Amino acid sequence: MFQEKKMSEDYKEMWANMGLDLEAHDALLEVLGKGYQDIYLAQKNRPEGMGYFDFVMSEVHSLRIKELLDEKAAGRKVIGAYCVFVPEEIVLAANATLVGLCSGADFATEEVEKFLPRNTCSLIKSSFGFKLGKVCPYLECSDMIVGENTCDGKKKSYETLKILVPNLYIMDIPQMKSPEGRALLKAEYIRFKEAVEELTGVTVDADSLKKGIEIVNSKRKAVQRLMRLRKAIPVPISGLDALLANQVFFYDNPARFTDSVNKICDELEARIEKKEGVFPEDTPRILVSGCPMAVPNWKLPWIIETSGAVIVGEESCVGERGTRNLTNDSANTVDELIEAIADRYFNIDCAIFTPNPDRLNHILEMAETCNADGVIHYGLQFCQPYLMEAIPVEKALEEKNIPTLRIDTDYTMEDVGQLKTRVEAFVELLK
Amino acid sequence: MFQEKKMSEDYKEMWANMGLDLEAHDALLEVLGKGYQDIYLAQKNRPEGMGYFDFVMSEVHSLRIKELLDEKAAGRKVIGAYCVFVPEEIVLAANATLVGLCSGADFATEEVEKFLPRNTCSLIKSSFGFKLGKVCPYLECSDMIVGENTCDGKKKSYETLKILVPNLYIMDIPQMKSPEGRALLKAEYIRFKEAVEELTGVTVDADSLKKGIEIVNSKRKAVQRLMRLRKAIPVPISGLDALLANQVFFYDNPARFTDSVNKICDELEARIEKKEGVFPEDTPRILVSGCPMAVPNWKLPWIIETSGAVIVGEESCVGERGTRNLTNDSANTVDELIEAIADRYFNIDCAIFTPNPDRLNHILEMAETCNADGVIHYGLQFCQPYLMEAIPVEKALEEKNIPTLRIDTDYTMEDVGQLKTRVEAFVELLK
Repeated sequence: MFQEKKMSEDYKEMWANMGLDLEAHDALLEVLGKGYQDIYLAQKNRPEGMGYFDFVMSEVHSLRIKELLDEKAAGRKVIGAYCVFVPEEIVLAANATLVGLCSGADFATEEVEKFLPRNTCSLIKSSFGFKLGKVCPYLECSDMIVGENTCDGKKKSYETLKILVPNLYIMDIPQMKSPEGRALLKAEYIRFKEAVEELTGVTVDADSLKKGIEIVNSKRKAVQRLMRLRKAIPVPISGLDALLANQVFFYDNPARFTDSVNKICDELEARIEKKEGVFPEDTPRILVSGCPMAVPNWKLPWIIETSGAVIVGEESCVGERGTRNLTNDSANTVDELIEAIADRYFNIDCAIFTPNPDRLNHILEMAETCNADGVIHYGLQFCQPYLMEAIPVEKALEEKNIPTLRIDTDYTMEDVGQLKTRVEAFVELLK
Repeated sequence: MFQEKKMSEDYKEMWANMGLDLEAHDALLEVLGKGYQDIYLAQKNRPEGMGYFDFVMSEVHSLRIKELLDEKAAGRKVIGAYCVFVPEEIVLAANATLVGLCSGADFATEEVEKFLPRNTCSLIKSSFGFKLGKVCPYLECSDMIVGENTCDGKKKSYETLKILVPNLYIMDIPQMKSPEGRALLKAEYIRFKEAVEELTGVTVDADSLKKGIEIVNSKRKAVQRLMRLRKAIPVPISGLDALLANQVFFYDNPARFTDSVNKICDELEARIEKKEGVFPEDTPRILVSGCPMAVPNWKLPWIIETSGAVIVGEESCVGERGTRNLTNDSANTVDELIEAIADRYFNIDCAIFTPNPDRLNHILEMAETCNADGVIHYGLQFCQPYLMEAIPVEKALEEKNIPTLRIDTDYTMEDVGQLKTRVEAFVELLK
């Protein structure tokens, strides 16, 4: 998985040319492949359509990278990003490709801690680790990397990352949903459009922007459809598989991704028709809410779904927070379309905003529509925005009699036993 | 000190009327009094003028509070703040008084951790502890409390503090020194002026604003004078005493504070004339840079100055970062004066800004003008902005052959032994 030993030989030269550390990269792929085998392929009753995602994951550092390099050879630019605030619509409109950058696993931690404080969240450390360890082909093939001033950790760490990644572009993000905050976001999107135009040599016009919006909206609609279907009783797809779709959202060719998700959805509709589930109908249903889970951060979902429960929704950036809203494409000028894009992204209820009441409302709404029996709040250690929000969120949910478990963890496997004990006890409560 | 037992009887009723927890407050004053005795009064060769600050500290919860209550009785409003971004000029122009709020000691920690994650910096926890423990008369007598969106920790914790402190006003602060960031700050200062006007019923005009600017500039000039004089060889005032002046800056009546600091400065000039120091001329000279130290957070300076070194400068919000710049008062309209205020505060090189190159330049400049032999970077645990900046700052200083020690700590006394060992070893290096 990820890369069979034999196949990988064909890509060694490609990776070497990109400056990857082949030995470290091989070691990474081996660990990831084993993890995918144990966590994903060990699942039962998976929809057949997931075979596509298994393939994607097996080729995530090889065939997909080759595709990107072929695009680059044909003059297309690749832009890497760490956050859902970077508007793919604009990137596509400039005939470029947006990819999510690796940040779901620890790598080169000792080296990372020469650049970042130990008390930095795993996601940020990971983004440094993949750079310092030279194991992220997405990062290495990007013509431009976009960092964003979301949390303090990212904002300040980009100052240091900029030394390692000179083509790092910084996007400012507001902290409040005030008129000034909205104006700042729009100004930043205009500045980003100009930077992307300069990178690509392509001038964004209303037509290309409308087309970009259409492509991204289609992706979102497909995922939204999947997220609606998984809410059925019994649940027709595991939380792990649904999460994988949300994760691949950031890597794959948009049109192909959209088709593949829709094919899975067709299959799920047939399953629902037949009342066919991946787990028994009475399996406790969990909504996971909190920090994003980037590939291959499957620790908590894996613990949950091997502890007698099923995940029925992700209130996360790699989940409904990231894909909930569509961009209105009805306008006919670049400025109005950028307005629509700013409107769409300004709605994201990330914990970096203060106050952020929409997020609690969305959690409550999702808990209801997903028929969730309980909520597990997932916080990355040292992620202040989500850890701070977790406490009032837990209080508010408990007040509505929604059992809630607050978990703070990192990417290490050290706490798996302890987490499993806590999750099992929580699941027992929900029965 | 802080409050002699006998005297405190006279204030018990005042404190009780303010809603303080008398027993907890007595316990706090006792600890603080003992700390002041051991740390401040145990010093040798102090300038006589420091007697005023000893008096201020002995009355910090009593006579000064009575003054504020008398002001309130006469119709004046009191505004409490946690940060140097809150413009005292505007507060004074509206005939109100600005006070810094207690956040330099742990209090009611167990209770605090029901509201905030354990991994929150001591400063933020302290502000909650003083509220939950009902021991901060400044907080209780404030008509309006101003929180600001600086770091994630403060930004998000204010959402929770708002439940405990309904009269909490939130001021947004930009993250980048861009034109949009500057516009946001100015818009926020206009909104703040309007809020203060509404609170006080006083309309701010150009005259009152110019007068407010003049009062605050005078305070700053006095402290700037003190900061210049302490740079002499031998050093005429201890770092602890100079820090205290920077701390009382936030509490005392502005005019009285200015006079008192200037009196100390006169005395220091006489000392310098006579080459009279508080420590021998060859005492290693340390510049402290990093997080602010609010009363009674004297742990690190006390360790440094009892380890054979002297502190010659504070690159801190409770120090030169907070008082370095004056506000230009030459304009003649409210809008232009607010512009000047925004200009002044937009210059503050707080680590919440990205990038923040001015801070490193100021550290280098201070190290040079203070004739510092080394820099100790002081970071509060879990303060991401300063901890993140500490690493590149340390690297840059070491590259300039300025010995640097990076210390991350909190308000507990648990690590005093370990810190003392590290500081002593560092001081030994500087000899």
